Amino acid sequence: FDSNSINKYPFPSEQIPRLSVADPETYRLIKESKPVIITDTNLVGSAAKWDLNYLHENLGKGLFYVYTSNTNKFKYYNSNRAEQCKSFVNPTERHHVTFPQFLQMLKRCSCTDEKVYLQQILNDTVGTNIVDDFLQFNWDWVNKCKAAFGWGQLSSNLLLIGLEGNITPVHYDEQENFFAQISGYKRCILFSPDQFDCLYPHPVAHPCDRQSQVDLSNPDYKRFPKFRNVRPTEAIVGPGDVLYIPMYWWHQIESLLSRGLPPVTVSVNFWYKGSALPDKIEYPLTPQQRVSVMRNVEKMLAAALDDPDKVGGLLRSIVEGRYT
Amino acid sequence: FDSNSINKYPFPSEQIPRLSVADPETYRLIKESKPVIITDTNLVGSAAKWDLNYLHENLGKGLFYVYTSNTNKFKYYNSNRAEQCKSFVNPTERHHVTFPQFLQMLKRCSCTDEKVYLQQILNDTVGTNIVDDFLQFNWDWVNKCKAAFGWGQLSSNLLLIGLEGNITPVHYDEQENFFAQISGYKRCILFSPDQFDCLYPHPVAHPCDRQSQVDLSNPDYKRFPKFRNVRPTEAIVGPGDVLYIPMYWWHQIESLLSRGLPPVTVSVNFWYKGSALPDKIEYPLTPQQRVSVMRNVEKMLAAALDDPDKVGGLLRSIVEGRYT
Ligand SMILES: [Zn+2]
Ligand SMILES: [Zn+2]
Repeated sequence: FDSNSINKYPFPSEQIPRLSVADPETYRLIKESKPVIITDTNLVGSAAKWDLNYLHENLGKGLFYVYTSNTNKFKYYNSNRAEQCKSFVNPTERHHVTFPQFLQMLKRCSCTDEKVYLQQILNDTVGTNIVDDFLQFNWDWVNKCKAAFGWGQLSSNLLLIGLEGNITPVHYDEQENFFAQISGYKRCILFSPDQFDCLYPHPVAHPCDRQSQVDLSNPDYKRFPKFRNVRPTEAIVGPGDVLYIPMYWWHQIESLLSRGLPPVTVSVNFWYKGSALPDKIEYPLTPQQRVSVMRNVEKMLAAALDDPDKVGGLLRSIVEGRYT
Repeated sequence: FDSNSINKYPFPSEQIPRLSVADPETYRLIKESKPVIITDTNLVGSAAKWDLNYLHENLGKGLFYVYTSNTNKFKYYNSNRAEQCKSFVNPTERHHVTFPQFLQMLKRCSCTDEKVYLQQILNDTVGTNIVDDFLQFNWDWVNKCKAAFGWGQLSSNLLLIGLEGNITPVHYDEQENFFAQISGYKRCILFSPDQFDCLYPHPVAHPCDRQSQVDLSNPDYKRFPKFRNVRPTEAIVGPGDVLYIPMYWWHQIESLLSRGLPPVTVSVNFWYKGSALPDKIEYPLTPQQRVSVMRNVEKMLAAALDDPDKVGGLLRSIVEGRYT
């Protein structure tokens, strides 16, 4: 990758440890819900051949969600909520297209400023070769991890095919994630869940729930003063690497420029439901549990008031001059 | 009463309507949870003779809660919580004394700056004459009111014997109240529940839960800027008057100076549980229901975090930069 494509940010960061699948330390970190890059897992080795040609021939005739953006940012939004919210301007456009149509869109990008990002859950419309590759993923290893850490079900595998330079802005997911890199390089910037106050997510009922309101490359310190305190941990992942992104950890993922290689990155997410709550809650709550409590307050109030737009007013009434 | 003892406040106010027990408008107001002074109820006519001498002879040998204050303000506090909260300074001192001891304390007040206020729930330690007077209260009328408005049980009758000049600072109760004046005059300043934002009650877990943090006679507009918007409704009640104080309505009660009469005011509260929730909640919520939701958020979070002192931090995390 082109090291000139590594953006400069106004905060210092640490490096995510990079450890072998055979290193016991790897599992200690996962157990503690700490990010780690795991090498030599062979998790998606069977997908190493997934270049655009192979995918074109084997992905089948199904439809794929493809997002287009006039910037290099692809901020996620809930499209159902976006439709209900008149004032919301979609940050990207979502298309439902065949794989050949996606390749057409990719070609067009080279002539325009438009960027494109395929993000599709793998399903049974894919061709038999892809099914074979999928079955040869290292399920033995991930299933053992799932069991060892008490995670819930595998909920989905998301295939991501991104143009170099694409950025998925900082957000958190409510699931455990093994992020498996297949081709190209991605920079992954992670923030622990105890940095919630620094990252100012949108309200829970907003289409951009779970996404930070802060633009890492141009933070608005007036609105988001505590962003000055963020301290990420980061790493660059390449083909064969698996990044463990713990549930509720914030992450921004940036496709790096590829220096002569094909200008796309290919990755697959393995999303697992979190572990069940312990029988006995211990206090103080973990930062993750605290975020979950905050989400529930926001959801409960939207229900109690029968209107998500009234949640802010009520919360301000509770807080202002009373808890300030 | 001495009209010079009416404090000047920096807000305009309306007058609470004063209507006869026979006026249908009285019941329309109560039905709508609006304050009203009701004349001619004869609710506590049998107590008209309750001067200090009569009470001395007939109240019995039971113990009475008597509060003393170095100012004229008697801000209520929960004494159990006050004991648990090291940093809390009791705004008044609470004593548990016989009625003769209370009379001694009253006498002492004339020589010192100390003020004294008896606030005791009527119970079965009182003498037979007081029991007779109590049984001759106009139960027929209050029971009919309770039924007509769908209120719950009578929870208690509080006897209040206050020195002239005493002030019970602005607070709300979670019950319906018929406030029956027996002797002396009290100024009652009420604020509707939709003025919650103007009155900044202490946090729910604070010993002064339900009490406004604002001193009406010396408001701190820096901390409590919306207090500028308060618009009370007020009245002076005298012997025989009954003031309906609707549940969740804010009220400050001030004993007026008595111009030659004995320097005490005597009142009895009739507190009723509020009506049951309707089968079908209508939206938007009433201001009363909104206060109830806010109280529940605060209580729920104190429980979820296992620590009331952590509620503020979590609420600020939810609100700041997100709902502001
Ligand atoms: Zn994510
Ligand atoms: Zn009261």
